[in-house]
Amino acid sequence: MLNVKTPDEALNIIKSQFSALDNFEYLPLSEALGRTLAEDIKAEEYVPDFDRSTVDGFAFKAADSFGCSEAIPAIFTLAGEVKMGEKPEFTVNSGNCAKIPTGGAVPKGADCVQMLEYSENYGDGSIGIMKAPAPGQNIISRGDDVYPGKTVLQKGSVLRPQDIGALAALGIVSVSVAKKIKIGIISTGDELVRPEEKPKFGEIRDVNGPAVSALLKEYGAEVRYYGIVRDDERLLYSWCEKALRECDGLIISGGSSVGQKDAAEKVISSLGEVIFHGIAIKPGKPTILGKAGGKPVIGLPGHPAAAFLITKLFVLPLLNALTGRIDRAYSVNAVLSENLSANHGRAEIVSVKLKKEGERLIAEPVRGKSGLISVLSSSDGYFIIERDREGLPQGAEVQVYIN
Amino acid sequence: MLNVKTPDEALNIIKSQFSALDNFEYLPLSEALGRTLAEDIKAEEYVPDFDRSTVDGFAFKAADSFGCSEAIPAIFTLAGEVKMGEKPEFTVNSGNCAKIPTGGAVPKGADCVQMLEYSENYGDGSIGIMKAPAPGQNIISRGDDVYPGKTVLQKGSVLRPQDIGALAALGIVSVSVAKKIKIGIISTGDELVRPEEKPKFGEIRDVNGPAVSALLKEYGAEVRYYGIVRDDERLLYSWCEKALRECDGLIISGGSSVGQKDAAEKVISSLGEVIFHGIAIKPGKPTILGKAGGKPVIGLPGHPAAAFLITKLFVLPLLNALTGRIDRAYSVNAVLSENLSANHGRAEIVSVKLKKEGERLIAEPVRGKSGLISVLSSSDGYFIIERDREGLPQGAEVQVYIN
Repeated sequence: MLNVKTPDEALNIIKSQFSALDNFEYLPLSEALGRTLAEDIKAEEYVPDFDRSTVDGFAFKAADSFGCSEAIPAIFTLAGEVKMGEKPEFTVNSGNCAKIPTGGAVPKGADCVQMLEYSENYGDGSIGIMKAPAPGQNIISRGDDVYPGKTVLQKGSVLRPQDIGALAALGIVSVSVAKKIKIGIISTGDELVRPEEKPKFGEIRDVNGPAVSALLKEYGAEVRYYGIVRDDERLLYSWCEKALRECDGLIISGGSSVGQKDAAEKVISSLGEVIFHGIAIKPGKPTILGKAGGKPVIGLPGHPAAAFLITKLFVLPLLNALTGRIDRAYSVNAVLSENLSANHGRAEIVSVKLKKEGERLIAEPVRGKSGLISVLSSSDGYFIIERDREGLPQGAEVQVYIN
Repeated sequence: MLNVKTPDEALNIIKSQFSALDNFEYLPLSEALGRTLAEDIKAEEYVPDFDRSTVDGFAFKAADSFGCSEAIPAIFTLAGEVKMGEKPEFTVNSGNCAKIPTGGAVPKGADCVQMLEYSENYGDGSIGIMKAPAPGQNIISRGDDVYPGKTVLQKGSVLRPQDIGALAALGIVSVSVAKKIKIGIISTGDELVRPEEKPKFGEIRDVNGPAVSALLKEYGAEVRYYGIVRDDERLLYSWCEKALRECDGLIISGGSSVGQKDAAEKVISSLGEVIFHGIAIKPGKPTILGKAGGKPVIGLPGHPAAAFLITKLFVLPLLNALTGRIDRAYSVNAVLSENLSANHGRAEIVSVKLKKEGERLIAEPVRGKSGLISVLSSSDGYFIIERDREGLPQGAEVQVYIN
């Protein structure tokens, strides 16, 4: 019989059995988007490196304008003009001001900038200020953004566009990132034909090969798809052995339900060891986790919806473990559209369509059996009913993970 | 003065001024992930094309097992075995059953399958069934998933991994998708230096070039970055003209705040027309939308956080309009960690860090001025305070869009 684990047990086993490979590479910033940082990034500079104005206006001592108003402006002598990208060589003494553009360096002596909108140029070398700024107002001070030693990005973070911006600001134009993890995928099953073929009676096209490949590519893995291998233990063994030689991990899709042709489990046992066979979750129960030569081997269920959801819920966390990536998945709150019964004894993954109804999102369970690809393609996400729940009532709040 | 629009007005203008370019290309399925469909996809086949078993077990007429139990099993004569991928040539008559694997074709005469777990093989050619299935149970019928003429994917959808799977199932191995939109980016400002340079006093590194490029690449655009152009109207004009010749649209970063060097607006006017200058939103007010030769030209504010958020909120919707892409952004519910005051008269974009506290997500506003890249890099997302709100109290529920 299956050696069945709960979803949490399965995830804990994955985390304890596999840790980050020490494979990293240096990439120029322009190629680092979406990659996983292999080191903490600490700043070595001040950003900004000088006090900058955030507006077009006039720089002066804030105290000189206290109490001013539209009726009684504070009058300053225009003592200079800051040019963009130049260090102002003058000092702004009490009673004086300097014209300054957005991004310009605040001259010595000034401790605030007031916007053009609150000023009047009398044309005689004097400037009226109608509203008093607080000291520091409209100024970004040196190091406000970043200072030497500050950790700006954590090891394991996936580089987002704004992180690329942060690194550019710090002058960091090359970063150490985890090498792309290389995963082999083998589809197995005598009933499978390639997508471009017309299935004969009793045959179906291989959906999991393309779908799981795409999911891993979207994650950021390098995927090597070995095609469809017949349900023949020796043949499957030799392909798996080849794939494990060439990749960091292997996924075998299909051939993992308990039955006459349970080739995947036998092959994984021959190559290494089966860690567990079965997760108490619906769909996706006949999932296998194995290990061969230190590398993970996953046996995915053959049903497309099950294979897809198991990849999301268990294979991507495995890839996180192998690359040291910090997970950053958020769920969306939605309201269940109908009563839902659930299996006792195992968790259930419910695929849903999301519909906006005023401010609320409504989650409508997508009907169908787990073999149906349309369950996935017409769904926006999924939520999980825990194993100890008998079901959920209409109107219950559910946490939907977006597909 | 600025011709300022509200955020909604700005979005409506974008949608009314720009429509989908009729540029599409055919791609093999393996290269179509993340691309925007240029046509509705309708099925031409039944999926599955035959009645399939979803379990390993026995197929028979459901009525023959009604009333059976563990104590009193229904006894069937084993009349045949379905082989994977083969059309069963026999019929299951009343009182008979056939062995069938998961995915096997249900033989004529049978209308249900019962799992091995509820059966007993007496070894004398007879099989006991301990639990009666309903008609249709454990069978996916022909066309359950998809039938000819059913729209399985809508024009404008971005192809997700599961959609790639659906197309593979239908034998659709090439699809028509919108060509990648090509966007030119020019950074302008005398204070800017390239990220690999050490800024001299008064200079700063160009953050928007790399950050906005990465954001558009992540969206799926093709980006051509023309580098930093000095604040010189004629020089900027000639670079913009070149970029517009080579791209479908142009972004000019910086040079758009009202002041002495408002080159961007002048250049856009010379090249074509300025549609609006200013959005009533903070940060990001001095945003320009223009049009030249039918192509969009955006003037982004120079502040990195402002440029980034304006790109998210207005430039990506513009790219959706140009590619016909259907937007599918979801927000996450979170609880505000503190009282927040807001400007009257314009909407405010608040960057936040998200922290999990039990079941709830807490949104902590990230302090800082809009020029600070760390506001973005240390934030997980943002929410918007509408212009007519004076602020929000601690504990208010906010809709956070993930960065």
